[in-house]
Amino acid sequence: MSPPTTRPHPLTQLSITEAHKARDIVIGLHSGSLVSFRTISLEEPLKAELQKFLEIEHNGALDASTIYPKRVARVMYDVIGGTKIPQYQESLVDVEEGVEISREIVDTKHHARLTLTEFDDLVKAAWASSLFKEAVSELHIPEGFEVVVEPWPYGGSIEDENPRYFQGLCFAQDKRNGNPDSNFYGYPLPLIPIMDAHTREIIRVERLATGGIEDGFKVGTHDRDILKHCKPSEYVPELLENGTRKGLKPINVVQPEGPSFVVDEDESLVEWQNWRFRVGFNHREGATIHDVRYEGRSILYRLSMSEMTVPYADARAPFYRKQAFDFGDGGAGDCANNLELGCDCLGVIKYFDGTKTQADGTVSTSPNVICLHEQDAGIGWKHTNWRTGRAVVTRHRELVVQFIITLANYEYVFAYKFDLAGGITVETRATGIVSVVSIDAGKNKSEYGNVVAPGVLAQNHQHIFCVRIDPAVDGPLNTIMVEESHAVADKTRNPHGNFYEVVSKPVEKVSWIDAAPMNNMFIKMINPGKKNSISGKNVGYKFMPAATQVLLAQDESIQAQRARFAQHHVWVTKYRDGELFAGGRYTLQSKREVDGVADAVDRGEFLGTEEGEDVVVWNCFGLTHNPRVEDWPVMPVEIHELRIKPCDFFEGNPAIDY
Amino acid sequence: MSPPTTRPHPLTQLSITEAHKARDIVIGLHSGSLVSFRTISLEEPLKAELQKFLEIEHNGALDASTIYPKRVARVMYDVIGGTKIPQYQESLVDVEEGVEISREIVDTKHHARLTLTEFDDLVKAAWASSLFKEAVSELHIPEGFEVVVEPWPYGGSIEDENPRYFQGLCFAQDKRNGNPDSNFYGYPLPLIPIMDAHTREIIRVERLATGGIEDGFKVGTHDRDILKHCKPSEYVPELLENGTRKGLKPINVVQPEGPSFVVDEDESLVEWQNWRFRVGFNHREGATIHDVRYEGRSILYRLSMSEMTVPYADARAPFYRKQAFDFGDGGAGDCANNLELGCDCLGVIKYFDGTKTQADGTVSTSPNVICLHEQDAGIGWKHTNWRTGRAVVTRHRELVVQFIITLANYEYVFAYKFDLAGGITVETRATGIVSVVSIDAGKNKSEYGNVVAPGVLAQNHQHIFCVRIDPAVDGPLNTIMVEESHAVADKTRNPHGNFYEVVSKPVEKVSWIDAAPMNNMFIKMINPGKKNSISGKNVGYKFMPAATQVLLAQDESIQAQRARFAQHHVWVTKYRDGELFAGGRYTLQSKREVDGVADAVDRGEFLGTEEGEDVVVWNCFGLTHNPRVEDWPVMPVEIHELRIKPCDFFEGNPAIDY
Repeated sequence: MSPPTTRPHPLTQLSITEAHKARDIVIGLHSGSLVSFRTISLEEPLKAELQKFLEIEHNGALDASTIYPKRVARVMYDVIGGTKIPQYQESLVDVEEGVEISREIVDTKHHARLTLTEFDDLVKAAWASSLFKEAVSELHIPEGFEVVVEPWPYGGSIEDENPRYFQGLCFAQDKRNGNPDSNFYGYPLPLIPIMDAHTREIIRVERLATGGIEDGFKVGTHDRDILKHCKPSEYVPELLENGTRKGLKPINVVQPEGPSFVVDEDESLVEWQNWRFRVGFNHREGATIHDVRYEGRSILYRLSMSEMTVPYADARAPFYRKQAFDFGDGGAGDCANNLELGCDCLGVIKYFDGTKTQADGTVSTSPNVICLHEQDAGIGWKHTNWRTGRAVVTRHRELVVQFIITLANYEYVFAYKFDLAGGITVETRATGIVSVVSIDAGKNKSEYGNVVAPGVLAQNHQHIFCVRIDPAVDGPLNTIMVEESHAVADKTRNPHGNFYEVVSKPVEKVSWIDAAPMNNMFIKMINPGKKNSISGKNVGYKFMPAATQVLLAQDESIQAQRARFAQHHVWVTKYRDGELFAGGRYTLQSKREVDGVADAVDRGEFLGTEEGEDVVVWNCFGLTHNPRVEDWPVMPVEIHELRIKPCDFFEGNPAIDY
Repeated sequence: MSPPTTRPHPLTQLSITEAHKARDIVIGLHSGSLVSFRTISLEEPLKAELQKFLEIEHNGALDASTIYPKRVARVMYDVIGGTKIPQYQESLVDVEEGVEISREIVDTKHHARLTLTEFDDLVKAAWASSLFKEAVSELHIPEGFEVVVEPWPYGGSIEDENPRYFQGLCFAQDKRNGNPDSNFYGYPLPLIPIMDAHTREIIRVERLATGGIEDGFKVGTHDRDILKHCKPSEYVPELLENGTRKGLKPINVVQPEGPSFVVDEDESLVEWQNWRFRVGFNHREGATIHDVRYEGRSILYRLSMSEMTVPYADARAPFYRKQAFDFGDGGAGDCANNLELGCDCLGVIKYFDGTKTQADGTVSTSPNVICLHEQDAGIGWKHTNWRTGRAVVTRHRELVVQFIITLANYEYVFAYKFDLAGGITVETRATGIVSVVSIDAGKNKSEYGNVVAPGVLAQNHQHIFCVRIDPAVDGPLNTIMVEESHAVADKTRNPHGNFYEVVSKPVEKVSWIDAAPMNNMFIKMINPGKKNSISGKNVGYKFMPAATQVLLAQDESIQAQRARFAQHHVWVTKYRDGELFAGGRYTLQSKREVDGVADAVDRGEFLGTEEGEDVVVWNCFGLTHNPRVEDWPVMPVEIHELRIKPCDFFEGNPAIDY
């Protein structure tokens, strides 16, 4: 089913040529002003158009007469004219026709995602600031140590005015070992410089509380010699005091005949063992998965990591603001690691590249931002006939699409895993270095965290993820069912007490739903128009939402207002083009979640459950992370899996023939 | 630290010589009667004695003067004299001194675990029974098919009299393909012969309901031609209609330098990457883990799969009785598979043997009942310094102790996994063939299950597992804490609403505790006398109990009465020698759980929380399994993991030096 034309598939990332064409058009439209680019990336086609195209594609009917959806670039940029504050705009540009389709001048109450150049600006501004230098000079930094300013999003602003700010967390790095990777997080300093991103000036330097539980909110309890009780917290192997561990012999994964997957020419299509899907990549979500089919039957239209928030629980000012939205603030694609064989993944790997956009609009390749590989995952199914002694046992193999992001101190590993039994698992691994602040010598009790190294308090926090599932189970119109298993007290139905009933109800209106594993609650995405020929039930896919702790912040708090998506486990919304982000389009320095899932549910639409509807299901889950000493200096992975499984979709175990 | 004497370690399984010595002693004690043996296996030493020994061992002070705990065999057997009903007895025999230490004549209200010879008896009794043959003749079994009687435990008896019974589920096997592994479960027959195990006679044949939802409890709605709408449900590769799948290229796990673990001469001691523990094996629990230490520090005294129950939810008689206790009824050790390289596990494998006991007391080796291997488990930890671009990434390797059991139609894969970050994970995988009954042609709606193949109804059921954790965190006396994270409404403590508090309370009395993941509830096993030098918190290990659905059967039902352990997620009890079984010692045909965890909690003992106590923690979790068509004919694994992690036990990430 190779395309008969040389046009890229509508889901293929923009080529660098296409991106540069979009840049040139935008520059031309703003002659007289300076345009500072943030990102240039593919704007996915409208669903109605793409669905039509995919239908033709899957019918094998692509030909010269096929109407392709427009190739559109979304260009995000600041227009800088005169002395005015830069104006943030987004243009959609038709890169084939060479014309701008639409332009949005984003309201000043929103802030564009951060860029890495703004990080550099902050560091420069700090060192140019007498305010900051004065604050540093109040501390005694030992000989051989240098102050490091670690840029961070400012967080949620409770002030009326909301200019674009950045904050810097401060640490000291031991330069005496000459190693640029010496771990400075082990030497926290109680200062936060705040930069106005437009003026690039440090407007104030916040002094942080450093006390224990006995000090309450008090600031300034620390010694001038702030690091005297701190110790090295190294993790790079050459700096480990006792060297690296011996005796761990190699485990090699060898695929002598190569991988079992095929990736097509234009690099977006993956085929493996009856599975077929496309891999996308964008600056905000990182890897995305599209048009997932098994034996040609549609399962999902789109699958993505939509958002993540990390609110911190330290009650002392200014930590009420400390809350990252790793996707909305940072951009998972922009922060994606360039992966390496042997460490990030084993076996035969296919890497996918992404792109980076520079301020002047130059787009370049960011190599190996996604990897694709197979992995063995233990026993898949087994049965032993005890009469004959014959055992039949198979392996549970998975195809993994993985990307890893770094946001300052912290790392996340995301994987979409497809298995031989028709299952799709979204795996998250949290790792990296926990965010820490200074704590005074001799104090090791705090309500706000755990002392993980001398002088180092790792603050309690939560990580709440949101996966966006756009189902297309055997077609675009699906119905969402909530299925539970209930005990039955009625003695006429249950004379011996062993009976329980399975109760299944459609979601008739956009809404949120909380997990209920004690009721064996599953969310089922079914096609109301198709039945399984064996069971007579509607074909479907299901998942059990995990009952992880939701956002703990008080409802009226800035943390909660900004992350309403994190207050429930499941959201069911009616599809709208462009509605991809659980926490809204603009999270940086937001005061409230706008146009996220909560607003989508507030629309109150009814869902046609008999014919089905174009619905989207969002699953939020997370980790309340009260750090252990074992999480220092780099934490072992904390793993979560969302397992999406067929449920009467097939006519038997799809892996029975392995 | 190799032992200076040639005596086996007290935790080493009985040798065949030792077992035969015990057998001979028991035969000698019952001269004049026939002794029919059930099992002969090591009786683990009393904890007080073993603890003393382990202390000497770990101090490197074992010498000729060391007092070893007695080597004791537990011999389970029936004494058959005259025409009386066989009397079930258990003797403890000192195999060094050659004397019986104690004998227990088990009350007739209890039933010993089943033996495979009883399975054979049932099959023979059925075919010798005119009752059964008559019942079969009421059905038309097509030419070329043969009736198969599948022995099953009788289940919970609601009758006053409770003789030892077995039931047979009946199927037909297609013999025309000449393959003895042709899957007969696809051809269920609506008959259950019941055998009195003492008389070995079929006392009645139950006729099963075969209707759909429209038929209620009605029996006899089926055609005489009972199989005419059934179809093959094959799983052995040579019988698959379309053959096996192509294109899945090999993934080989290669360890060119061999494994990183060491297993000592007497085969019970395993050392791997700072871990050190002993592996036991017994007829009831399968593999058990003992004396778990890391860098010499004690973590667990003993870890085991304690029990499992599988109650079925079909309200129609006689299914109120359908409930298996795979450990108590069947014996996980007795049902353990003999494992094979390449299928059950990859890489370099060390196998451990167990033993089988025959009725005459002959004990023989059962090869490869446990396997030990290392596996790669993805990224262990990672951090990228975005300033320098330097990424440090490690792999999360696990050492796996695995065993697999088959109980008639069903399989479980159990694994104890030790990892580089100090974690211990107990993994269960449920697979095999779901238990099915006949359903009439043209009916595919039932409240009691799902139609997974034509004429085949897979009944809804639950699997509830119980893991027994006997902690010894840095010493024998530990305190169990329940830790939760709570939102804080008080504005003086939480002025900006972002603060939450971590609340930790000791368990002061033996009790059950239900999971509360929405409160981020962890069970912590701490040593109240030892503090982490960095955080100042007590050293500990923790796990989050999963909020899986508890037993759904009504409280007063036979199912619930027999499996009180399955009604809560966590039980905390005070240690008693021999109290190993969550559902009690005798589950076969039980009417009520006796001497299980619920009775232990009913003792109401207070726990000394300041000095610690010798406590045991039991974690129950499970799966409400309403079968999918995809679970047929052999179901893909359903995986659960209980993750036990260090919590301020170490002074940093133990895997930082990999």
